Amino acid sequence: MPNPSAAMIVIGDEILSGRTRDSNMHHMAQQLSEVGIDLREVRMIGDERGTIIAAVQALARAYDHVFTSGGIGPTHDDITADCIAAAFDREIDVRDDARQILAEFYRKTGTELNQARLRMARIPEGATLIDNPVSAAPGFRVENVHVMAGVPAVFQAMVASVLPTLTGGAPLISETLRVERGEGDIAGPLGEVAEAHPDLSIGSYPFQRDGRFGAHLVVRGQDRAEVDRAMARLKAIFA
Amino acid sequence: MPNPSAAMIVIGDEILSGRTRDSNMHHMAQQLSEVGIDLREVRMIGDERGTIIAAVQALARAYDHVFTSGGIGPTHDDITADCIAAAFDREIDVRDDARQILAEFYRKTGTELNQARLRMARIPEGATLIDNPVSAAPGFRVENVHVMAGVPAVFQAMVASVLPTLTGGAPLISETLRVERGEGDIAGPLGEVAEAHPDLSIGSYPFQRDGRFGAHLVVRGQDRAEVDRAMARLKAIFA
Repeated sequence: MPNPSAAMIVIGDEILSGRTRDSNMHHMAQQLSEVGIDLREVRMIGDERGTIIAAVQALARAYDHVFTSGGIGPTHDDITADCIAAAFDREIDVRDDARQILAEFYRKTGTELNQARLRMARIPEGATLIDNPVSAAPGFRVENVHVMAGVPAVFQAMVASVLPTLTGGAPLISETLRVERGEGDIAGPLGEVAEAHPDLSIGSYPFQRDGRFGAHLVVRGQDRAEVDRAMARLKAIFA
Repeated sequence: MPNPSAAMIVIGDEILSGRTRDSNMHHMAQQLSEVGIDLREVRMIGDERGTIIAAVQALARAYDHVFTSGGIGPTHDDITADCIAAAFDREIDVRDDARQILAEFYRKTGTELNQARLRMARIPEGATLIDNPVSAAPGFRVENVHVMAGVPAVFQAMVASVLPTLTGGAPLISETLRVERGEGDIAGPLGEVAEAHPDLSIGSYPFQRDGRFGAHLVVRGQDRAEVDRAMARLKAIFA
């Protein structure tokens, strides 16, 4: 059976303007590989209502899971929750359980639960909350869309809350052979090995260091024995 | 007049599997900001023919410029050039000018121009070559799509070759105010400033350091005087 598929949406003008370097995508990719969910597509988009709604609808239809990061804080440019509600045609309002989580957290830290912070308790109708052990304000899940914060520490905590609730497939096994030759010398025989193992994904990732060219040959698959056979063949040719 | 718009497509299984951390997107975003071209969307996709063709067609229609990275090397998984040709319904074959560039480079470095390396001279009909001062094998442009390599050093060299040929708009002016208060305290007054300056993009990017919360308030726009006015207002409130 093929692994479940996933897409991610990274939301935020600051990523597209080059001000902030996104790190959530790479974290998500690594975590999903480990649990056997195939990340197939990532979209990075700005804080724009129409764009967010369209991306959520398109990807929720196309993949088993969608993960979003960004835009669920208390400020005027945090519009993700409202967009998710609109994408699924659901009502959205401050929800009692989310409000209580915030009230308790802010009482402990001696912070006022003002109107702005209360925005973070706006949750689409029927959504399931995602635990945020870092700063309390929850993420949420609507159907197959998991809505999480953009701040990396909070995003990572939410991913850790979500992943155990999902059914993964066979984790991806990945083996790498470093070859100190140009890709142009490698390509022919590598292509033959790839052809002989159609169930594996065999890739070549060139590097350049100290003026010399080389490549990492990566064999990926779910069947340990087959990955080992392909790696043995590559070593026999290139090592 | 609004700035020209752009999208980027990052191509490669190694990015989606979490093996490699992409750095080309961030570089592209920063470079485009400087020349006044608005990056509106980034898609990261795998080495899959149908997916690449669909993304190229959709984004080439929607934006003024499209930039791709990855998949133009000599190995079997380098399928970007063929996908671009298919996306625009053009022929593709080894082209004499590209072959000559490779032949000259490899003669100098004493490397054989074999069948695999010759793949890198496969260029869609009517495309314009993009200079690659690092490793010779050229990128190319078809209509509004600029096709570049994935290796960061080569990608950056190609971006430097391409950008001077494009007409940008007004570069984005961006000013940042660091505020050591939680976003929840900032949100109310910040929203009022944003409302008073509808032509500016005013964002709040929370951070957490040593257990304390704060935010970077960022004012972006093309009109220096208006950016300054908004920043002065924010400083009066928060500094």
